[in-house]
Amino acid sequence: MELSTIYKPIREDLIKVENELRSVSKVDFPWLSELLVYSLSGGGKEIRPALVLLSGKLYDCNLDYLLPMATAVEVVHIATLVHDDAIDKSPLRRGRPTINEVWGEDKAMLLGDYLFAKAGELAANTRNLQVIKLFAQTIQTISSGELNQAFSAFNLEQTRQQYLQRISSKTASLFSTATESGAILSQAPEESIKVLKEYGYNLGIAFQIIDDILDFIGTEEELGKPVGSDLAQGTLTLPAMLLLECYVEDNPVKRLFQNRDKQENIELAIKLVHNSSIIEECYAVAADYCDKACCNFDLLPDCPSRRALMELADYIINRKR
Amino acid sequence: MELSTIYKPIREDLIKVENELRSVSKVDFPWLSELLVYSLSGGGKEIRPALVLLSGKLYDCNLDYLLPMATAVEVVHIATLVHDDAIDKSPLRRGRPTINEVWGEDKAMLLGDYLFAKAGELAANTRNLQVIKLFAQTIQTISSGELNQAFSAFNLEQTRQQYLQRISSKTASLFSTATESGAILSQAPEESIKVLKEYGYNLGIAFQIIDDILDFIGTEEELGKPVGSDLAQGTLTLPAMLLLECYVEDNPVKRLFQNRDKQENIELAIKLVHNSSIIEECYAVAADYCDKACCNFDLLPDCPSRRALMELADYIINRKR
Repeated sequence: MELSTIYKPIREDLIKVENELRSVSKVDFPWLSELLVYSLSGGGKEIRPALVLLSGKLYDCNLDYLLPMATAVEVVHIATLVHDDAIDKSPLRRGRPTINEVWGEDKAMLLGDYLFAKAGELAANTRNLQVIKLFAQTIQTISSGELNQAFSAFNLEQTRQQYLQRISSKTASLFSTATESGAILSQAPEESIKVLKEYGYNLGIAFQIIDDILDFIGTEEELGKPVGSDLAQGTLTLPAMLLLECYVEDNPVKRLFQNRDKQENIELAIKLVHNSSIIEECYAVAADYCDKACCNFDLLPDCPSRRALMELADYIINRKR
Repeated sequence: MELSTIYKPIREDLIKVENELRSVSKVDFPWLSELLVYSLSGGGKEIRPALVLLSGKLYDCNLDYLLPMATAVEVVHIATLVHDDAIDKSPLRRGRPTINEVWGEDKAMLLGDYLFAKAGELAANTRNLQVIKLFAQTIQTISSGELNQAFSAFNLEQTRQQYLQRISSKTASLFSTATESGAILSQAPEESIKVLKEYGYNLGIAFQIIDDILDFIGTEEELGKPVGSDLAQGTLTLPAMLLLECYVEDNPVKRLFQNRDKQENIELAIKLVHNSSIIEECYAVAADYCDKACCNFDLLPDCPSRRALMELADYIINRKR
């Protein structure tokens, strides 16, 4: 199913979020404005704002508060991408040169700072102290997950538990804050807030596992960046972990992490993963999280938004980009 | 007058802020904790938290809200230092190796992100929506000021107006938010909030001009970093602007910004500034801002905190580090 079909219950609201994003770029300072226009118009999947809106629409939603929050989660997501790309010195993102590639790492760092703060201001526009605090804590969780990843780079001694901890911080936390805050802002009952928060968390874990799979099996065109980027950065993802378990002695990931024949070993790792059951296994893990995401959905009101959230879980497993 | 004497009316409260800062370092993730302990224990002058506390103490202050705000402004200040040092690739800050020097630029970027978000959470603990929003906007102003500086680096065509605009964004904005929020959180009357906000703004401008002077006339020991750092980064400050006006044709700043004989021209620029009336002129500009800062103080209640704010303006002009 296409995202645009899934997003049907919130089509008009997502257009409003896009307008909000455009108005973020409207600042007096021309250099900043140029950076904002460029970074905010990358054409993402808008999953995080959709999660805020769909969760909110299940209940008594007030767009005056839901829209700034939906915009805030997208802005914070973009801020993390800008900083990640600068850290990784990535030249491409979504098929376009990155901010660091065009303007340099210093500008990328400062633009990211601006975007984080703008997201904080948008979250403050919800006028809900619980949501504002949750949002600030989520950015701390994301940064600490990214720090964890940076400190673990090229370390072969990592457990699956540590992997899950890391993707929980760097990805699932924002997904769960999106659904939780959508529910809080729409006065959902406590039990429903919990169901939606857990949906977001499990969906986020599945989303990141699929991201990590695609880094092995996608094409550069689909990914909008080179295949094998995670390995190149020394990030040990689930497929790479399973590959390490398969070939204990002679392993390209091992050689790569010991800084030997980088490109050759990335290609070999990708080939070995392709010719094994690793991808299937990873998909099974992701599918489990998607099932878990929706397992308490009978506690939520039966409506188009609930259906859309279920379809989104299905989309995430099958996505190619 | 020593800072510790000026801070007398808030001595105990500043100790509480220091305890709050220490508790920010208490996180489960050991790598992050190490970075936080290091960055938060650099021993700054605590001027920004002092401004929150002194402004608040003039009125009906509630420490439950004032303390988190005082901590928030210090944390955000430290976050900007961490990012600035990473951008400038500075090896030293306050006489110690910087985060980027010890742990690398990637860790510095992520630590700064974490600190900005922690500051946002602390600001949210004030439970005052106006203050929370003001704080988020201030971080945007600071980032846009830093971006302005980055885009203007090594550009000789800058007006004094542009210099003031830049230091207003990157420094005075946080000073004025500190005093304004202290006043707001203590239910100060509108007129007093305005007086304190303007005091903070003018004090911040003076503070930055003095900082820019010290970069020429200080010693490495006093500054905790090399002399002439601004010139080395291509940042045109007030003393450098005046030097450009003095020697229109043959000028070391000009040659330096055209990327010629870096160290030699920095030393020559410092020497020329020393042997001119430029430093005196810059001090006169800073002193004007300090006078302006306190010019409406008779509208504030006459109490130890008001006296301390006046003494602080005096301290700022005379400081050597």
